[in-house]
Parts: sequence; C-alpha cells; structure tokens
Amino acid sequence: MAITITNVIVRDIRFPTSRTLDGSDAVNVDPDYSATYVTLETDAASGLRGYGLTFTCGRGNEVCVAAVHALKRQVLGSTLESITEDFAGFWLRITSDSQVRWLGPEKGVIHLAAGALINAVWDLYARREGKPIWKVLVDMTPEQVVACIPFRHITDALTPREAIEILRRNELTKSDREKEMLAAGYPAYTTSAGWLGYSDEKVRQLVREGLADGWSHFKMKVGRDQADDVRRAAIIREEIGPDRKLMMDANQIWDVDDAIEWMKPLAEFKPWWIEEPTSPDDVLGHAKIAKTVAPIGVATGEACQNRVIFKQLLQANAISFCQIDSCRLAGVNEVLAVILMAAKFGVPVCPHAGGVGLCEYVQHLALFDYIAVSASLENRIIEYVDHLHEHFVYQVKMKDGRYLPPLDPGYSIEMKAESLDYYEFPNGEAWRD
Amino acid sequence: MAITITNVIVRDIRFPTSRTLDGSDAVNVDPDYSATYVTLETDAASGLRGYGLTFTCGRGNEVCVAAVHALKRQVLGSTLESITEDFAGFWLRITSDSQVRWLGPEKGVIHLAAGALINAVWDLYARREGKPIWKVLVDMTPEQVVACIPFRHITDALTPREAIEILRRNELTKSDREKEMLAAGYPAYTTSAGWLGYSDEKVRQLVREGLADGWSHFKMKVGRDQADDVRRAAIIREEIGPDRKLMMDANQIWDVDDAIEWMKPLAEFKPWWIEEPTSPDDVLGHAKIAKTVAPIGVATGEACQNRVIFKQLLQANAISFCQIDSCRLAGVNEVLAVILMAAKFGVPVCPHAGGVGLCEYVQHLALFDYIAVSASLENRIIEYVDHLHEHFVYQVKMKDGRYLPPLDPGYSIEMKAESLDYYEFPNGEAWRD
Repeated sequence: MAITITNVIVRDIRFPTSRTLDGSDAVNVDPDYSATYVTLETDAASGLRGYGLTFTCGRGNEVCVAAVHALKRQVLGSTLESITEDFAGFWLRITSDSQVRWLGPEKGVIHLAAGALINAVWDLYARREGKPIWKVLVDMTPEQVVACIPFRHITDALTPREAIEILRRNELTKSDREKEMLAAGYPAYTTSAGWLGYSDEKVRQLVREGLADGWSHFKMKVGRDQADDVRRAAIIREEIGPDRKLMMDANQIWDVDDAIEWMKPLAEFKPWWIEEPTSPDDVLGHAKIAKTVAPIGVATGEACQNRVIFKQLLQANAISFCQIDSCRLAGVNEVLAVILMAAKFGVPVCPHAGGVGLCEYVQHLALFDYIAVSASLENRIIEYVDHLHEHFVYQVKMKDGRYLPPLDPGYSIEMKAESLDYYEFPNGEAWRD
Repeated sequence: MAITITNVIVRDIRFPTSRTLDGSDAVNVDPDYSATYVTLETDAASGLRGYGLTFTCGRGNEVCVAAVHALKRQVLGSTLESITEDFAGFWLRITSDSQVRWLGPEKGVIHLAAGALINAVWDLYARREGKPIWKVLVDMTPEQVVACIPFRHITDALTPREAIEILRRNELTKSDREKEMLAAGYPAYTTSAGWLGYSDEKVRQLVREGLADGWSHFKMKVGRDQADDVRRAAIIREEIGPDRKLMMDANQIWDVDDAIEWMKPLAEFKPWWIEEPTSPDDVLGHAKIAKTVAPIGVATGEACQNRVIFKQLLQANAISFCQIDSCRLAGVNEVLAVILMAAKFGVPVCPHAGGVGLCEYVQHLALFDYIAVSASLENRIIEYVDHLHEHFVYQVKMKDGRYLPPLDPGYSIEMKAESLDYYEFPNGEAWRD
C-alpha cells in the first residue's frame, strides 16, 4: 500500500557546546553544534515516520529551518513510492526548484536544507524496507543504485554506464564483506584529542586514553599558531610512536602559498594528511598544495558544496582522501555520485564526521562504499568524535576503534524526544538562561 | 561627527514577473524577481539612511531575509567610521561569523545576505560623502581601494602590492575618463529581446525595436531546444546584420560535453560569447569548453559564488568575459577584488544585470572599472534589461544604448516607498489575490 507524506515538521535544535570549547579549531572557534531536524509524518497505519537532520554550528540554524520550509512542498503530499521509483528525478526536482535554486544553486543553506529533507526521505524508505540504509544500498542492483544518482554536470567525469561497471566489479563478493563488517566493523579515527581549545596536558592525556581505547589514527587541529602546532605535533607523535597515523586539519585557514610554507616544519612529524589547507572552493589551490606537500596527502570535503567540486578535485589530482559529508552534500543520492567518482579516480573515501549526528549518518555510507564499491579498507577510515551520541535513539556502536554496523531500520538519525525538547532553540531548557 | 547604525530593517519584496514570462530562460522558467531589501537607520540628525538589496527569484526570498537577520549583529550599534576605517576587516568579520560561516562558507544564501547588508553600508557611506559610489571609488587612492579588499584565499593570484600597481597604471588619467563617461556614458547591451518565453514574431519585433533604439549587442537565451535556438539565432542575425554582436546564454543547462556539442550548429551565427554553458561551480569544465568552442568566448559570473571561483576561472583561462554580479558577490569589497584580478589576467569585465536593481548597482562598478582600472572599453559592456526600473528613486538613465553615470549620492538602490508597500510579500496589494 502506498504511503503519503502528510506533514513536514522542522525543529531548531542546538547544543551549547561552545561553553566547553569542544570542537574548537582555527576557524570554528566557538561552535554550538546544532541540527535542523526534520520529521516526515505519513498516513501509514503503523505511524511510520522518517527523520533527517542537517548539521550546523549554531547561529543561523534558523536560516536552515526556513530553507527546509521553502523546499518542503517538493515532498508534502507525495507518496514515498512516487519518490523512490525515480529517486534521481526527485533529487533534481528538490534541488532545481525554479525560483529557490537562485539562492544556491546547489550549495550553502538550501543544499544543507535539501540534505536534511532528502535524508529524511531515505530514512523513511529504509524503515519501510525494514533495513538500515547501508543494507538497503548494498542490496540494490547496480542499476538500482545508478537510478538514485543525479548525473547532471558530472557526466564528463562519470557516466551512468561507467558507474554500473564500477558497481559490477565487486558485486559477486558483497556478502563476504558484509559478513566481515558485521563481525569486525569499519575502522575509525578520533579527533577528540586534538582540539585547539585544549591544553598540552589535556592533549597528551587524551592521546593516552585514545591509545588505551585501541585508536591507531589521531587527528590534530593546526593553523592558529605555528609554534603551538609544532609543539603539539611533537607531543602526539611522541605518544603514538612512529607507526600510527597522525593527521592534521587546518579548517581552511590558509591561503595557498601559506599552506605550503606552514606545513614545512610540520613535515618532520610525518602527517598522513593535511585536511582543508585552504578554501574548500579552491580546486586549483588544492592541486598546487597537493603537488608541493607530497608525500603528505591532501584531504578535503566537509565544506565542499556539491558533487561538481568533488568532480574537479578528483580530475585535478587535488586530493588523496575524499571526505564526503552526509548533509553538506544533499543527502544519500549525491553522496553516491561522489563515492562512485572517487572509485573511478582511485581515491579512498574517508567520511567527515563529528558535529551532531554525522557519525550516525556516515557509518552507513562507508559500509556501502566498502561492501559494494571499493572492496578495500586501504587508506580508508571514518572520522569519529565522541560527542553528543547520547541524544540519538540508535547510537553508534564502537568496538576497538571501529564502527559496528547499525542493524536498526533507517538512517540512525532519530533523536530522543526528551533531547529535542531540552535543546530546542530558543525555548528549550538548555537555552533558558 | 560619528554616526551609529541604530536599526536594520529587512523587507521581503517580490514582483510577480512570472505572470508574463519576462525573464524566462532554460533554467529560470518562472522567476518572480524579488529583493531582500535592507534599510540601515542611523542616529544622524539629518535622518541619513543606507539602502541595500540582494536579488532573488521569488520563493525562498524569506530565507535570505532570515539570513540578513542572522548577520545584522555585525553592523547594529557600529559607527559607520569604525567600519570604513578598516573596510576589509569589516568584510571579513561579516563573512566569517564563527558560527554562521558553516552555512556557506562565503556562498549561497548567507553570501547573498551579506551582499545586501554590505552594499547598504556602502550606500550609507557614499551618501555621507555626498557622492555616487562610482565617484567615491574613483576618488580613492590606490591604497584606499586596496584597504577595502578582502585578499583572503586569493593572494596566490593577486597580492595587495600587485593590486596597487594595477591601480597606479592609469591613475593620472582618471579625470579624462571621468569626463568622457559623464558626456557619453558606458556601453550596454540588451537582453530584453531574447527570452525563451517569447514567440519568434515577438523576438523579431523586439530586435527591430532594439536596433531603432541604438543597441548594437543582443543576447538570446539558448538550451531548451536546439532547433529553436538555431531558428531564433538565424532571425536575430538576419535582423542585426553581420557586424553587430550576438551573445548566447544557456543558464547552466548543459553538461560539459553537451555544451560543446550544442554549440556546433550555433557557431555559424557567430556568437560573441556563450554565457553559463554549464555549472557555475565547474572551473575545469568551463576551461574545457572555452578551449573547444573558441573563437566563441565563454562568459560566466552571475552565479559564481565568490572571488575564489573567479580567481580559478581566470587562472585556468576558462573565461573571456568576467561577469561580476553586484550582490552574488558579497558587496562592493569583493567585487573590487574580482575587478582587479580580471585586470591582472587581462579579461574584460562585463557585469551581469537585469533582475531587480542589478542595473542600478552595476553601472557604478563598471564606471569604476573603466575610469580607475582598465582604462579601456574594448570588449566591455554592461547588461541592460528594461524591467522594474520605475520602482527606484534614482533610476538608471540610458542614452543611445549607454548607461549615463548616476549623479545622486549613494548606490542608486533605494526603492520608492509605495513600491515597497505594494510589492511586499505576502501582504502587499500585489500579492493579495
């Protein structure tokens, strides 16, 4: 029986994380991790709902809320089936509203809002299927996956035919990797130790705790003070030894030539990657930096606005690690496009996570990537930050520094009712004083 | 005496232009030309105010209004002097709000909103100086101009020192060109004849009217149906003869390789440029198209999100015409950066206009470019569309297909009180049925 989306509820949820400087870096000095939180109500007798969110940093979350309202007419009154039978067509409709698209196009606020809405539809779809998203995707045929993908403006890099060929490569062995993932999980790295707001002592202590918890990859923030960065890199490298991986993240603080200069004294600590060395819009800049700082790899993606930027980063050999974001890109459909382009160009996908809800989301995407696309874990790892998971109904499960595949139906992004009430801005209890 | 900005009023103004299909093209099929309209009130005894707007296409304008509210704390309570004494610093503060920037960064809704706010500050500043914006800029020293420019993320293409050198090149002859402009005006072209929503007969008639009015450059929209495009191009070329210029505008409709194919049968009509052949985010795609369709030039800019994209388009030899937009870029400061980069790379600036208020804005920018930067009119021309000018207090003045320099103080963007009331969405009379 067809089910119809009868209501779109949008809530402004904010966590006052700036009070403790969790999540501080060279650019994001005081984020209040926030979510534009979408609930799709349906006419299903079971009370079936879909949930989605887009992550923001606090102020301005209300602008994203307004943007979801501007886009919601594309789902309101639609049946789930009318969407999923032409999922790419739905994606194009929602991102191509003839008036709203001027506000992007396909970037910034309206794209973040589209991500919340589109992911909520995917959550609804997966719940209806009784499977977690990763399993919904893994069980699709190559043709079904490709039918979800918006190819507009990327066919010079990836055609539907090429995407199908990539998906066929490892199709017959999917079930082996699915079993492997269910048993062992997907490898992760931690960013919890390296925030700029922490003292040297706190960094050292957190790295030691991370080692004790089984982490093998550690990421530090850089870019505010070069001497600080050198000192902290020395501490972390000393603690983790020569073989574990150290990553650095500049959060876009540098101009192109500054990035190249700043990394020179940091090279001795053998960073595996330098993340966001400059503007996320600067494809040519990343390419120049990548060429110059090699063998340090360049990573970026959390602020890359859409598949067209990722396409160019790949075409220009500008990145060694492709950091997809689950809601900066407009939902699962566009992420699939980027995962398949990365596969074509041979660049590993290492999803961005943290914030609020991003770990919950991206585990599904990485599992799909491994099981159905890449069939490799080499140089692949998901970010993990241990903030705010307690607010989710289906929390991420970590074991020995690995994400264990979620088994509950949906996209793992439903938040607890009491958390939503407590942290709703501006009237929830958390915001009352 | 210092004046303080005491209030920021934001209004949602929409013109129901979709009812007549004015402004229809392959992508923007039914725009309601709209403005997020900002008024800065001050404590000046004279009642001095500043006005700014950002242009949108209708639905979603309320999202831009919300974004101005999210950014307004960066001007509210500030003195005008505290802003203008470090104009680049002000620009960086408004575009780098540590929480709001996640929603861009520097693109889409929050950048459009920043444009409205920043341009309102420039309008206030110019009124205080008693000069139109173009004259304020022309009267600045090279050092003063450069102090307005945000160089973040573009110093690999243009340093402050290089910008000063460019401004010094033609400094001594500025007054000659100022006199020339005051007498003859800045050349323009018209887009009014070539909208997709018009019949062949209407196109022919409008071209004839355009010729009678003295126009020498005509732009047509393309990309919905190739046979239609060929037929219309033939009509326009037949009417305008072999020497006048015909431009084509695809409004981003094509993938990269489609653009190349589609232009093949159109080449015989000798288009001067093909505008927006593909995604505005696709620097490498534009470069490939430019290389292939030459000698047809590639033009883009109205949807180019910020100076970093323009920087790359110039670095990659992707454009022959640089179409700055007065509010897609975040106000005068960022436009100055692009004008100077274009000068360094030797690419003529041909501002995008039309919509509502864009002609009023860009005439100032082109006058500055000619008088203080390029000192050339070769291949330089401002778009002109004869819609909606009647709503402005200081309307553009055209003569023989040229913009005559505005003489009233400010940025020419103040709208009439009765127009604001009539077209305010959703409660103005224009929207009541």
